[in-house]
Amino acid sequence: MSAEKTNPGNFFEDFAIGQVLQHATARTLTSGDVAVYNSLYGPRFAVQSSDEFARAIGYPRAPIDDLIVFHTVFGKTVADISLNAVANLGYAECRFLAPVYPGDSLSAASEIIGLRENSNRASGVVYVRSKGRNQNGETVLEYVRWVMVRKRDPAAPAPAPVVPKPAERVDPATLGKAVPRLVTAGYDFALAGAPHRWSDYAVGEKIDHADATTLEEAEHQAATRLYQNTAKVHFNLHEQAQGQFKRRLVYGGVVISLARALSFNGLANAFHIAAINGGRHVGPCFAGDTVYAWSEVLETAELPGRGDLGALRTRLIALKNRNSATFPLRNADGGYQEGVILDLDLWLLLPR
Amino acid sequence: MSAEKTNPGNFFEDFAIGQVLQHATARTLTSGDVAVYNSLYGPRFAVQSSDEFARAIGYPRAPIDDLIVFHTVFGKTVADISLNAVANLGYAECRFLAPVYPGDSLSAASEIIGLRENSNRASGVVYVRSKGRNQNGETVLEYVRWVMVRKRDPAAPAPAPVVPKPAERVDPATLGKAVPRLVTAGYDFALAGAPHRWSDYAVGEKIDHADATTLEEAEHQAATRLYQNTAKVHFNLHEQAQGQFKRRLVYGGVVISLARALSFNGLANAFHIAAINGGRHVGPCFAGDTVYAWSEVLETAELPGRGDLGALRTRLIALKNRNSATFPLRNADGGYQEGVILDLDLWLLLPR
Amino acid sequence: MSAEKTNPGNFFEDFAIGQVLQHATARTLTSGDVAVYNSLYGPRFAVQSSDEFARAIGYPRAPIDDLIVFHTVFGKTVADISLNAVANLGYAECRFLAPVYPGDSLSAASEIIGLRENSNRASGVVYVRSKGRNQNGETVLEYVRWVMVRKRDPAAPAPAPVVPKPAERVDPATLGKAVPRLVTAGYDFALAGAPHRWSDYAVGEKIDHADATTLEEAEHQAATRLYQNTAKVHFNLHEQAQGQFKRRLVYGGVVISLARALSFNGLANAFHIAAINGGRHVGPCFAGDTVYAWSEVLETAELPGRGDLGALRTRLIALKNRNSATFPLRNADGGYQEGVILDLDLWLLLPR
Repeated sequence: MSAEKTNPGNFFEDFAIGQVLQHATARTLTSGDVAVYNSLYGPRFAVQSSDEFARAIGYPRAPIDDLIVFHTVFGKTVADISLNAVANLGYAECRFLAPVYPGDSLSAASEIIGLRENSNRASGVVYVRSKGRNQNGETVLEYVRWVMVRKRDPAAPAPAPVVPKPAERVDPATLGKAVPRLVTAGYDFALAGAPHRWSDYAVGEKIDHADATTLEEAEHQAATRLYQNTAKVHFNLHEQAQGQFKRRLVYGGVVISLARALSFNGLANAFHIAAINGGRHVGPCFAGDTVYAWSEVLETAELPGRGDLGALRTRLIALKNRNSATFPLRNADGGYQEGVILDLDLWLLLPR
Repeated sequence: MSAEKTNPGNFFEDFAIGQVLQHATARTLTSGDVAVYNSLYGPRFAVQSSDEFARAIGYPRAPIDDLIVFHTVFGKTVADISLNAVANLGYAECRFLAPVYPGDSLSAASEIIGLRENSNRASGVVYVRSKGRNQNGETVLEYVRWVMVRKRDPAAPAPAPVVPKPAERVDPATLGKAVPRLVTAGYDFALAGAPHRWSDYAVGEKIDHADATTLEEAEHQAATRLYQNTAKVHFNLHEQAQGQFKRRLVYGGVVISLARALSFNGLANAFHIAAINGGRHVGPCFAGDTVYAWSEVLETAELPGRGDLGALRTRLIALKNRNSATFPLRNADGGYQEGVILDLDLWLLLPR
Repeated sequence: MSAEKTNPGNFFEDFAIGQVLQHATARTLTSGDVAVYNSLYGPRFAVQSSDEFARAIGYPRAPIDDLIVFHTVFGKTVADISLNAVANLGYAECRFLAPVYPGDSLSAASEIIGLRENSNRASGVVYVRSKGRNQNGETVLEYVRWVMVRKRDPAAPAPAPVVPKPAERVDPATLGKAVPRLVTAGYDFALAGAPHRWSDYAVGEKIDHADATTLEEAEHQAATRLYQNTAKVHFNLHEQAQGQFKRRLVYGGVVISLARALSFNGLANAFHIAAINGGRHVGPCFAGDTVYAWSEVLETAELPGRGDLGALRTRLIALKNRNSATFPLRNADGGYQEGVILDLDLWLLLPR
């Protein structure tokens, strides 16, 4: 009788195509969450930092950082989707669809859209489309994620494989729904920290974000708990000491948030992440590592009907224990260079 | 002249039966405190997590976690009661009497209800009944605590011993005052994280909470400061390095909060601590320790006139550096097993 | 093209007398920031701790801790003034001019008021007057600071030296603007934590604050990020490991806040810092150091037209790894004693 109340997480054979999982726990985001996030990463984008700045350009108040929203929704999916994960394999088609403000209550649900057993039959890949909703039922975020999940029983039968093909990138024509029409005259570039508008960036441009942060155990644990993400690898040294890395693994979302905060230095006016086209956690990150970041502009796009905003598609690279002055990325053989830990493909919005 | 402004704390001979101490500092709890607490422990109980969830069942908004209230009130008593404590010996008759919401201002006062000098005359046991009040004068929490306090002067005369006998457990008929009548139809068990109601639990049932957290110095210090608890043993390595443990001791309330947060996995709908019947900090906890937890159902009770809620009396056990799969508790000789650090006796409320 | 978007910071030769720099990023302070600050330092001054206490004496609600305001404004100046600093040399004429409440949005600007090249021509001293303003355009804080900044090119010509002479102390007749007229009958000394009013302190009195805190990397980093202060020396171990100290340097403002919070024990009713007359960071502070503090009363002053408040000028000394029982300060040769890390000259306000 005792074991049945504990959530063991779902295993590969527990999922079925079309299944929808309502995730726990509903969560109200507050200005307190914003402050904790700020203390953990130090973001400086003016729109999220100042109610006054936000109002001057047409928001009712400062919106919550896009990545708080992402991590909150993602965190809710862990207990149902990835408690028995071997590896998080990728993201795609991630779009931010409505602004989120302090006081909004978010919940999350995921639909199983793909399943493919691995040839060793010990695990399989689960594809989900996850959506975060606010208290009014509006979808504020959606994304596709695929993750390798253990089977409870290798002998269990597997369903016919269904492998979705996520879009290589989000169509820029669909971006910008989370940003009200800007009062561009109200955007104070001095207060925002840099003069560079959308049109000041060019494809191929690389930006060394210069700053760096050394991560502590207390920091990544606090961040991960803030999102109610309970994946054991991030918290349990007693168990991890017996594992592959001998220590706690930093939640990949912490690296994303750190790199994004560092990117302010060079992308100060890219205040909104409109979409995550894809992302790979190329290497593990641990407490004690120093994280650097750099960006490359991959593409620029106008948004239909939006003279106020333009989109930059950027590659955001996080490095550990080496600086970004030489823009390290790949070796001649195509593999990632030593020290690259994150390769993220984003659509960012800037004032025009 | 210089020393008199510094608070040396009270010694055993400074207390008198019937004395009432008004504690400093009044404190307004905010959504910021909730966010910091969430980042330190990661609780996931839906009622405290989401304003929307709370409103759906009849609260005006999400109430503040019961343990934030407990630690806040407890923290205020430290400077007057236990600054010169040798050991915190026990709690009893702790009841949560009114919900606390962000914006409420709490203050605390304690009455001395028992005094008994130890035979060595170097210290004595002080029994207090402490109450936390909100800005409207309502008592939101009360509890009895006894603590061993040093004497300033071993030769000082001691009062006639008065030894109260706290109730073995809080009468369940008195529970539930901090919970409005629930709109039970509004309680969404999927959003809350588990289907198990009050009636799904049985006496004798043991629940392995499975998850675990490794504690860091920065975490327990932040938690303890949040409650304005200034006991030196938690903060001063320079002094503690000369002491019994050679390091900082984690505030026992941190272990309580960690174990409570871990207990979500198996007790997801036990959203309210209605009472703490008793508790023992069986062993010390230090940074670097990994805390696990398990629970046993000791008793179930209906609440008079409350068809919406039922009470479970549980034993909540925290372990360090060993998992809870075998429900470690006592040895054949009656002593606690290696690794047990907390034995807490609670009344929890769940929807019926 | 790539490098130009990254802010390299200003070098000595980039500054000119009379130049005004508008700093990024505008920042709304919230109850979340207050909670994070409380968790990092544990201040207990009742006016800032409790809305109810604050209302009882005439505030509309609890004001934000003066040092949060100071660090927030200071943090904004870093990217423009001191990113290439060799050393922060001093503060003066710092006055708090209006209360700041949760929800207020602050921005900061600095005027260059002095420049003096060093004889080695590799660096020079920059004097700035910085002001923090709220969303209504009111100046909430102003101060003078001087800092040694590297030259980009030692051969670059230097302007004629201009060396301001900041006041030795702020005129007490100008203090108190950030405090509404107190309803003194509403000031509850028991709730505030000590009975001592302004008139209970005498010049020459020394107060051992007794408590102490051992600092962790995660703590000082969180604090410094909360103020959006990005100075690399505080965050980048990978780079600092090659530097003078081989480790991250704690932001001096963290030591100020810690010492101020410790000073509650002995100065519980000195609830407002009205001015910082001057300050020196006498020695570096690192994670692992245990910080103690003591104060000396240097001067007392009445405030014109303010029968509600009196001012104490105090020297606030922070020590590391030695306690303050003997009030360590200077050696016979006039140098600071081993362990002194901060010597701060303050005007504090207390109820009369």
